[in-house]
Amino acid sequence: MLIEFGGTRVLCAASVQDSVPRWRRDSGLGWVTAEYAMLPRATHTRGDRESVRGRLGGRTHEISRLIGRSLRAAIDFKALGENTVQLDCDVLQADGGTRTAAITGAYVALADAVTWMREKGLVKGDPFVTSIAAISVGMVDGEARLDLCYEEDVAAETDMNVVCTGDGRFVEVQGTAEGQPFDRAELDALLDLAAGGCAELARLQSEALGA
Amino acid sequence: MLIEFGGTRVLCAASVQDSVPRWRRDSGLGWVTAEYAMLPRATHTRGDRESVRGRLGGRTHEISRLIGRSLRAAIDFKALGENTVQLDCDVLQADGGTRTAAITGAYVALADAVTWMREKGLVKGDPFVTSIAAISVGMVDGEARLDLCYEEDVAAETDMNVVCTGDGRFVEVQGTAEGQPFDRAELDALLDLAAGGCAELARLQSEALGA
Amino acid sequence: MLIEFGGTRVLCAASVQDSVPRWRRDSGLGWVTAEYAMLPRATHTRGDRESVRGRLGGRTHEISRLIGRSLRAAIDFKALGENTVQLDCDVLQADGGTRTAAITGAYVALADAVTWMREKGLVKGDPFVTSIAAISVGMVDGEARLDLCYEEDVAAETDMNVVCTGDGRFVEVQGTAEGQPFDRAELDALLDLAAGGCAELARLQSEALGA
Amino acid sequence: MLIEFGGTRVLCAASVQDSVPRWRRDSGLGWVTAEYAMLPRATHTRGDRESVRGRLGGRTHEISRLIGRSLRAAIDFKALGENTVQLDCDVLQADGGTRTAAITGAYVALADAVTWMREKGLVKGDPFVTSIAAISVGMVDGEARLDLCYEEDVAAETDMNVVCTGDGRFVEVQGTAEGQPFDRAELDALLDLAAGGCAELARLQSEALGA
Amino acid sequence: MLIEFGGTRVLCAASVQDSVPRWRRDSGLGWVTAEYAMLPRATHTRGDRESVRGRLGGRTHEISRLIGRSLRAAIDFKALGENTVQLDCDVLQADGGTRTAAITGAYVALADAVTWMREKGLVKGDPFVTSIAAISVGMVDGEARLDLCYEEDVAAETDMNVVCTGDGRFVEVQGTAEGQPFDRAELDALLDLAAGGCAELARLQSEALGA
Amino acid sequence: MLIEFGGTRVLCAASVQDSVPRWRRDSGLGWVTAEYAMLPRATHTRGDRESVRGRLGGRTHEISRLIGRSLRAAIDFKALGENTVQLDCDVLQADGGTRTAAITGAYVALADAVTWMREKGLVKGDPFVTSIAAISVGMVDGEARLDLCYEEDVAAETDMNVVCTGDGRFVEVQGTAEGQPFDRAELDALLDLAAGGCAELARLQSEALGA
Repeated sequence: MLIEFGGTRVLCAASVQDSVPRWRRDSGLGWVTAEYAMLPRATHTRGDRESVRGRLGGRTHEISRLIGRSLRAAIDFKALGENTVQLDCDVLQADGGTRTAAITGAYVALADAVTWMREKGLVKGDPFVTSIAAISVGMVDGEARLDLCYEEDVAAETDMNVVCTGDGRFVEVQGTAEGQPFDRAELDALLDLAAGGCAELARLQSEALGA
Repeated sequence: MLIEFGGTRVLCAASVQDSVPRWRRDSGLGWVTAEYAMLPRATHTRGDRESVRGRLGGRTHEISRLIGRSLRAAIDFKALGENTVQLDCDVLQADGGTRTAAITGAYVALADAVTWMREKGLVKGDPFVTSIAAISVGMVDGEARLDLCYEEDVAAETDMNVVCTGDGRFVEVQGTAEGQPFDRAELDALLDLAAGGCAELARLQSEALGA
Repeated sequence: MLIEFGGTRVLCAASVQDSVPRWRRDSGLGWVTAEYAMLPRATHTRGDRESVRGRLGGRTHEISRLIGRSLRAAIDFKALGENTVQLDCDVLQADGGTRTAAITGAYVALADAVTWMREKGLVKGDPFVTSIAAISVGMVDGEARLDLCYEEDVAAETDMNVVCTGDGRFVEVQGTAEGQPFDRAELDALLDLAAGGCAELARLQSEALGA
Repeated sequence: MLIEFGGTRVLCAASVQDSVPRWRRDSGLGWVTAEYAMLPRATHTRGDRESVRGRLGGRTHEISRLIGRSLRAAIDFKALGENTVQLDCDVLQADGGTRTAAITGAYVALADAVTWMREKGLVKGDPFVTSIAAISVGMVDGEARLDLCYEEDVAAETDMNVVCTGDGRFVEVQGTAEGQPFDRAELDALLDLAAGGCAELARLQSEALGA
Repeated sequence: MLIEFGGTRVLCAASVQDSVPRWRRDSGLGWVTAEYAMLPRATHTRGDRESVRGRLGGRTHEISRLIGRSLRAAIDFKALGENTVQLDCDVLQADGGTRTAAITGAYVALADAVTWMREKGLVKGDPFVTSIAAISVGMVDGEARLDLCYEEDVAAETDMNVVCTGDGRFVEVQGTAEGQPFDRAELDALLDLAAGGCAELARLQSEALGA
Repeated sequence: MLIEFGGTRVLCAASVQDSVPRWRRDSGLGWVTAEYAMLPRATHTRGDRESVRGRLGGRTHEISRLIGRSLRAAIDFKALGENTVQLDCDVLQADGGTRTAAITGAYVALADAVTWMREKGLVKGDPFVTSIAAISVGMVDGEARLDLCYEEDVAAETDMNVVCTGDGRFVEVQGTAEGQPFDRAELDALLDLAAGGCAELARLQSEALGA
């Protein structure tokens, strides 16, 4: 599925395997993992291809790990059984917030994959314990803003990515001072804004899944 | 630009740099190069990401080289001046003939880039000496067929990729016996079919470019 | 310098170079960067050496980036001039909180290096805009705890790393739900605890630097 | 065995293993694979060693794949049984046409290896369905020429490598316009010339094998 | 354990695994292997991290192999049983003779590990056939000197590393002319000096192990 | 040039460049470096290609370094001027003593290259301070033996490689106890034997160079 947030477009796909990584075998538990990548022309200035350089950059590694960790919070691995869902998030066009768009879209791809697994009888019960959505917020000119585009992102003093469950709890909170350090009041304002944004996204995901 | 051939979808993008690789500096000549890649979910069964494995596979290398070589045949490097056009061909969905779709689409992306360069005054004259299109043909059940989809490709006894100029000459001919070796009559039939297919593609390219 | 937090021991060293990375040249600005690594026997069970595997793991990359980003918040790059300080944080023994110990120790190493640079006349004014310290906090059995050791870390439902300036503002907040997602009240309790811990660390750093 | 074509010298060796790659196990079928490499001083100007650079170049990959594919056309894998023949083609001295010399020599090495396997009782029947030879042809100064040496290769407008079976059918046809695109008449002339050259090579191979 | 030789400090650790590498399985024999590394700030001028460069340097490889080979001379692999001892030697500070310090320290770590294995009942008899110590000697200003520090090492005309058993026989002798080649008389003087030094080290090891 | 020692055949080539590595620029001094490699079929059982594995093994690294170091002892770098000689030693067939054969052959290739450089006027005086030859010796069944073949090498209790100058001094002495440690008397016997062998090789080199 293709998720679009303003000028950001991320292709999210889920692949199902009826086995788990070696370290998890015979545990009765499933696994969810993710890989994130950016096409070289997704950004305004062409970036090098990581496959050509022969190494994943630190940023790619970090975001792949974040997506996997976030989506695993949605799943009861016992109910999933010894199956692995591999999520691929490929950014076709980037205009800020690619990692949060990837998480939000990956949830929908994961939900589709699980529905397919249930239809095929690969999974018995419902492995979802919650839905997952993510959003980026930031302080721009002293004001908390939702879902920054690239220009705002560059200008932001603080950049925060928040991953929430469908019932409004936090799975991941990552706030970074790009310019000035931020105080507690600013942090609180950002968290409030993000929680509201995630609730709205959860509603849109639910619609997209025809629930 | 996105090129679609049946179930095959390739995203082709051109990036312009006002410099050339080190070995070509101060020659007054330009350069065109290409990188081809497949998203892990482009194929029916998910493939490994080459960036994760840390190496480009031989197939990727080979196709990237073919695309670059083919497109360079379209260009008068003196007229291009010391500029480089980098072509990126990313396969979003694969259903046979990805390399020939990539070449055909890359020509359009290259033509757009050159138009932009001329508007910006980066290039004076017309660096194109011809247009370039490519098609795959093959022998299936003893019959020459055009533009094989994945199932036909697998079943083909012979698989041939042909790159032609707009005026019907050959830039590259690559025929491979997958099953039975092929005789001269079969080779001639495949070449006739491919030449006709490329002529039709040249017409479509010309339309797409609004010429 | 060697920093010890309970059973965690990290060797932090700063190296000074009178130049900056290529992309920052002729800007008049300095740079601070960091590399984090763990000796194979730092953990209870021996880990593979990343130099032998030929790749940095995602975790190593991520922590190196976090340390560099955090320490850069302490510095006025104009006052530093076109010099680079490279911070090396090598974990000799790990018992929870290695990344926060590394940041706290790296600040002291950085402060020592800057003092040396000022004595040598490499730096004129005071490039420090603040001090930096970091701590890990977590929810264990429903209770907010400071500076988790390895056993607590494993048992924690939520794990949070907080980087603060000497005047109590935030540079980085990274909270991750390991088990249950956390609600706003828990998040607030963790932030309060972390802010207090960082203030105490800032005092200890100041003592160590003989201020 | 050492094959010499003018100034080109390629060392071709076959190694036999009584197993097949994992993906082919329990199929009852054998496998043939090849690796091509050039000593750094094979060319006039010393090239870098690929083992030192830590990556195979695209050209090496491409030629290794071509050699393996070509030789597999000679073999009935059922008759070979679950054995693998690994062909190594190392260019000691290069003066044009190294890939076609490698294929022609590798066939002789493969035939020797199969004879040895039959003597040892590893193979029952005759796994050869045909012999394989290869030659390079090209248009130089508007004329079709056989087996180009390095100087001719550089000057060639079109370079074509052709792999034929002993009974004159085609296994692989790879024609590339280095300078001017080529028309159908030129292509036909090159194919005629190559077919004749391969027939002569097949005769020499047969002599070398004492048949 | 931490071994110090003048300004050289090496952290030596032994890890025990109740299995052996694949090629040694079901032989009834154990294995001892070693990895050597230098922290980037161990030397006066910071060196690059090999994990970051993505390759082990030749020197690291060479020393790791030397340490493993030397320690294996101490062990009766039948008595060790199918267990592997992995030795890690990490240089925290380097001032000449790091490889010989590593060998001497690794012996003590190995002896401790074997004692632990015997207490746990993993090993029945005594797998030690001898103790192992190593020292560096060199010709400086025409004179044989023991255990060179960094300045002497740089100035040495000949540098020799000698590994001896506890009963005074040689396991490894590596002499290299850095400046002038050396004659037989000089070689004899260096060997005498080294043998005496190793005997002294064997006494110190024995004390350290409380024998 | 091709050097043969019993069943061992090593191709040694020298390449000249009129520049030196970056770290040696503007010093007025030349450089000599070497790369050693083994073709996969040089040994009785086929080895993996290091270019395919993407890493040089420790043994390859170690031997390349030994060859370079040994040959550098022959040269007055001031007389060589800012030129680099790159030595390539490729083992076509291995039957013991490949590294010593490589050194002995590389000296002849180096001498040829220097003669060529003097003829071209690239080098003024005579950069050779001595000749270099190397030999392997070992204890087999309690007896010192010269130039071990593969079977003797495997059976040897001690294996020693010795590099000598033309006037009988030592450049490198590397003795390793493969089985039993060796005592001083055995070491002396091996050194005597090696010195005699190197003197004979120096005579043969001189003949080969037509001196």
